[in-house]
Amino acid sequence: MSNNLKSIDSASVEMIEKARQDKVEIVWDRWEAQQPQCGFGELGICCKICLQGPCRINPFGEPKHGICGATADTIVARNLLRSVTGGTATHVDHAYEAVEILGLAVEGKVPYGIKDIGKLNAVASKLGLETENRTPQELAEKIVKIAFGDFGNSSGNPMRWLTATAPAERLEVWKNLGILPRNPDREIRAALHQSTMGVDADPVNLLLATAKLGLVDGYAGLHLGTDIQDIVFGTPQPVKTEANLGVLKPNCVNIVVHGHIPFFSEKMVEWTEKLEEEARLAGAEGIQLAGMCCTGNEVLMRQGIPSAGNYLNQELAIITGAVDALVVDVQCIMPSLARIAACYHTKVITTMPIAKMPGAEHVEFTPHEADACAQKIVRKAIEAYQSRDRSRVRIPDYKAEVWGGFSVEAIVGALKSVNPEDPLQPLVENIKNGNILGAVGVVGCNNVKTTQDYNTVELVKALLKENVLVVATGCAAHGLGKAGLLNPEGTKKYAGEGLKAVLTAVGNAAGLNDPLPPVLHMGSCVDNSRIEDLLAALAGYLGVAMKDLPVAASAPELHHEKALSIGTWAVALGVLTHVGLVPPVLGSPLMTRLLTSDLEQLVGGKFYVETDPVKAAAGIAEHIRQKRRVLGI
Amino acid sequence: MSNNLKSIDSASVEMIEKARQDKVEIVWDRWEAQQPQCGFGELGICCKICLQGPCRINPFGEPKHGICGATADTIVARNLLRSVTGGTATHVDHAYEAVEILGLAVEGKVPYGIKDIGKLNAVASKLGLETENRTPQELAEKIVKIAFGDFGNSSGNPMRWLTATAPAERLEVWKNLGILPRNPDREIRAALHQSTMGVDADPVNLLLATAKLGLVDGYAGLHLGTDIQDIVFGTPQPVKTEANLGVLKPNCVNIVVHGHIPFFSEKMVEWTEKLEEEARLAGAEGIQLAGMCCTGNEVLMRQGIPSAGNYLNQELAIITGAVDALVVDVQCIMPSLARIAACYHTKVITTMPIAKMPGAEHVEFTPHEADACAQKIVRKAIEAYQSRDRSRVRIPDYKAEVWGGFSVEAIVGALKSVNPEDPLQPLVENIKNGNILGAVGVVGCNNVKTTQDYNTVELVKALLKENVLVVATGCAAHGLGKAGLLNPEGTKKYAGEGLKAVLTAVGNAAGLNDPLPPVLHMGSCVDNSRIEDLLAALAGYLGVAMKDLPVAASAPELHHEKALSIGTWAVALGVLTHVGLVPPVLGSPLMTRLLTSDLEQLVGGKFYVETDPVKAAAGIAEHIRQKRRVLGI
Repeated sequence: MSNNLKSIDSASVEMIEKARQDKVEIVWDRWEAQQPQCGFGELGICCKICLQGPCRINPFGEPKHGICGATADTIVARNLLRSVTGGTATHVDHAYEAVEILGLAVEGKVPYGIKDIGKLNAVASKLGLETENRTPQELAEKIVKIAFGDFGNSSGNPMRWLTATAPAERLEVWKNLGILPRNPDREIRAALHQSTMGVDADPVNLLLATAKLGLVDGYAGLHLGTDIQDIVFGTPQPVKTEANLGVLKPNCVNIVVHGHIPFFSEKMVEWTEKLEEEARLAGAEGIQLAGMCCTGNEVLMRQGIPSAGNYLNQELAIITGAVDALVVDVQCIMPSLARIAACYHTKVITTMPIAKMPGAEHVEFTPHEADACAQKIVRKAIEAYQSRDRSRVRIPDYKAEVWGGFSVEAIVGALKSVNPEDPLQPLVENIKNGNILGAVGVVGCNNVKTTQDYNTVELVKALLKENVLVVATGCAAHGLGKAGLLNPEGTKKYAGEGLKAVLTAVGNAAGLNDPLPPVLHMGSCVDNSRIEDLLAALAGYLGVAMKDLPVAASAPELHHEKALSIGTWAVALGVLTHVGLVPPVLGSPLMTRLLTSDLEQLVGGKFYVETDPVKAAAGIAEHIRQKRRVLGI
Repeated sequence: MSNNLKSIDSASVEMIEKARQDKVEIVWDRWEAQQPQCGFGELGICCKICLQGPCRINPFGEPKHGICGATADTIVARNLLRSVTGGTATHVDHAYEAVEILGLAVEGKVPYGIKDIGKLNAVASKLGLETENRTPQELAEKIVKIAFGDFGNSSGNPMRWLTATAPAERLEVWKNLGILPRNPDREIRAALHQSTMGVDADPVNLLLATAKLGLVDGYAGLHLGTDIQDIVFGTPQPVKTEANLGVLKPNCVNIVVHGHIPFFSEKMVEWTEKLEEEARLAGAEGIQLAGMCCTGNEVLMRQGIPSAGNYLNQELAIITGAVDALVVDVQCIMPSLARIAACYHTKVITTMPIAKMPGAEHVEFTPHEADACAQKIVRKAIEAYQSRDRSRVRIPDYKAEVWGGFSVEAIVGALKSVNPEDPLQPLVENIKNGNILGAVGVVGCNNVKTTQDYNTVELVKALLKENVLVVATGCAAHGLGKAGLLNPEGTKKYAGEGLKAVLTAVGNAAGLNDPLPPVLHMGSCVDNSRIEDLLAALAGYLGVAMKDLPVAASAPELHHEKALSIGTWAVALGVLTHVGLVPPVLGSPLMTRLLTSDLEQLVGGKFYVETDPVKAAAGIAEHIRQKRRVLGI
């Protein structure tokens, strides 16, 4: 495969070439070595759930049943439920630890505090707490108690974080379907039970359970995580920085933080600043901290730290020869990193008890020892800098300006510059008059099966041309950033006339002397919660159900179980959700039909599978026009 | 494959033949149709965790890495952790619902009560509750609160049910390894997180997490389940009944209950008795209730209901043409049942919200409506009886007397007839003097990959010859029952001289005029908890650690994820644990070595893989002799 088919990112292409010269095996090589991949697995009709298996269904004939008697429908449905449960558990675990740290912070036991009183009050209010005459500590304590209360809920009643967050219309739909989650952990446990050998054989029942787990992801994972992290670290506000491997600096100690956990990366930001003098004493010009994946998004949106790229950039960062420490927490960390780093001077440092790697150094990050841990890591990077082999360094000369930090609060803030009394009015007015056709959230990962950033960038360019406003999170946002779609020039270059006019008017009113970017970067994957908040605000303003809005979601390059759980939640919200790679469900025509068609009758949303991004954009635009017609706009 | 290679059970062989005549596809046909099974899956080196996959490692060369970079070690370790987590979640969900029902019973909201005050007090005492001057209701309420407290535990401290149950020596070992579980649900969730793409790449760290999940299974699944179920339904006491398909009666309404949940099956026992007159009015001689799998064990040990067999008998029960209703709850229920029942008059009735089956009738069982639900099901069976096609009925004329109900309390009760003051003394004395070589718990499933009951029965016969006392649970117990090893004749026929003498002496002292059976049936899979209680009592009496006892565990025919989690718990207890089929780990020589060797250094126990039951018995006996030598006996 030519390197241009591996990535549309010139920096990536250059580093893929360097990897070959350096004789280092990287993810594209491993992908090639895995060809052909197992067709049974790709179709979702391989089952490894019990030791009578593995079983495989022949999609063209016999065998039609696994050894236990499961059909292709049952097998696909069980596998999908397990994947979505895996993704959900991942987000819920992330959010739970955030709650734990806020609890410890309130007790003064860890070096974190409450940074955003406004968000604290907003979260308290949505939970129905009285905010008057209460100190932030008292309020935070109550919030922590409510969050943990959901996890200890043995009543059978729905979880409070969900009922406090989701629109009433949705609660009614989910209640009628019997999919309102009770206690997030209980639902995760029950889903594993339901999908084990000899429990549920009914694909429809399994699919409803999958939808329930999507709701757990949305509220006990995404919303809970965002709410707590905003309280502790502040709600993001617009910020300018840069993205791509070109942000690394030849004469600085380069530290890349990679993973998902801001409790770790925020301390890294603090200590790279505080220890910069030590780096200078070691001969460097300073310390350059850069982020990757969602840890990258967390520090980008709150601290303006530049992005070194997305999922498929992680190995390439090491290949530059210029990264002194690649410090990882959890999720989306390739197990190859330590092997690759062994060919360079780079230290790979793992930090979390559940995420170690043979060949990497482990510096355990605990909230109690957060400062000491971050210092230790920064010093290890300074030490590594001194053994950097300059003959092997090549930093690709590519980076783009990126605007980030578009929380809902920030977007409303910008709109207030147009209409302080009624900030949503200009947005809604421009949707009504057709300057803005609709809005799409573009989210998710990279996947080596498709050219890096291609699906994402081409889909978004096509949508912008149709005057569709795009918001983005996760690795999709990094990809769009590298491609120049997260800055005002992107608006000038790619937005249709109507959209451009609106973004320019808002930008001017906000005193930017530039349009807003055509794609608003809303944060990490966990921050997909913010997209629901925006949709709910719009739906509320228009007095319609969320499912009737002229909007859609898209994960053009998904690879992680988390993307499946987020997508399931989006569908349960009533949103058409495009995926740019085919999930392992085609082995069951029934499940394929349920997911891509019948689900719409139940929840208002469905999956839309289209691997060609230009066709996908056309399909999404047509869906949006259809929704507009129904609304009579 | 000849039918004699399918099962050693003559009733099964006869019904397998009848299935062929009736042109019905059963599990052995499906097994044949699946040959050859995927070698990558069998070795554990297929990974489907993310959408970049599926990936496969070549055990003989390239590729050595999955697309993400995971090695065979990482892939095997992640897959094993996920399987054990699945099994653990299954047991924990079962136990949690038991707690829920006890809580509702205390509030008088459901038709259940507290049957066993002695067990209630015993459980209260182990939890450190004051039992004096408290009503059973008050105590039960506190017990429920403590149980739910573990599930809501956000403190990071170990779960209370575990610390209250496990020996201090074990707690110390597990604490030093960092594997003491905090909150059962939190550990399940974290294990999914740990095993998702891009989190843990370290096989040792993953294996420690697996051990932790084994502990969750042992204490938040098995012990919690047994404790609560004994409180509500009574602790089993010795009971005589029969086992095999021959327990079905040609002129009775035959109802088979199958699955795992006594809250459902106890109500079925109650209502089959109460509605017997309706059956007579419909022309039957009465109602014959029989049990299958662990639901079968639950009603066998507490109510003396006969067993219709184990896992591989479930389809064959329908093939008899004499089963009017096969009523299932959860776990180990073949999805084929409804398809097979469609060839006969049998109604397959599902009862649990998480376990439905296309083609089956669903009568939802809720604790609140337990009586109405059980009545409805019994009446459906009576109705079905009336359309039974007698020309298609053939009930195999095989059944064996079975003694069940050997809870620890029952065993101690029997021993008291020998020494009322010091009941364990005669047992320990006979172990010391060599009349009893040691003890082995034989547990677990059937697996179509191996001749039904062959591994289990041959292993046990060989152990008995060596004067090893055997205790059994689960489908293994059913198999031993059908083979005549759960009654006094079995002792006369199969026990070595020393063991026979001891069992005869105890039987005579207890006024049975017969020896105790050579295999003591301790209950369902959940009741493996009872085996730990027995071991802990012996270890305490001898003043040694459990890992130093001359004992072992064996799952000769395991197939379910639950068997892997129970086995992991047994190993963590320090017990050598034999498995008679090869779990999917051989693709990683490192993991294989850790599981079958190095683990012993850490926890005192390890896995022992041997597919030949006679060789396995020899290996286990040698292990027991080695332990005796270390103890100096």
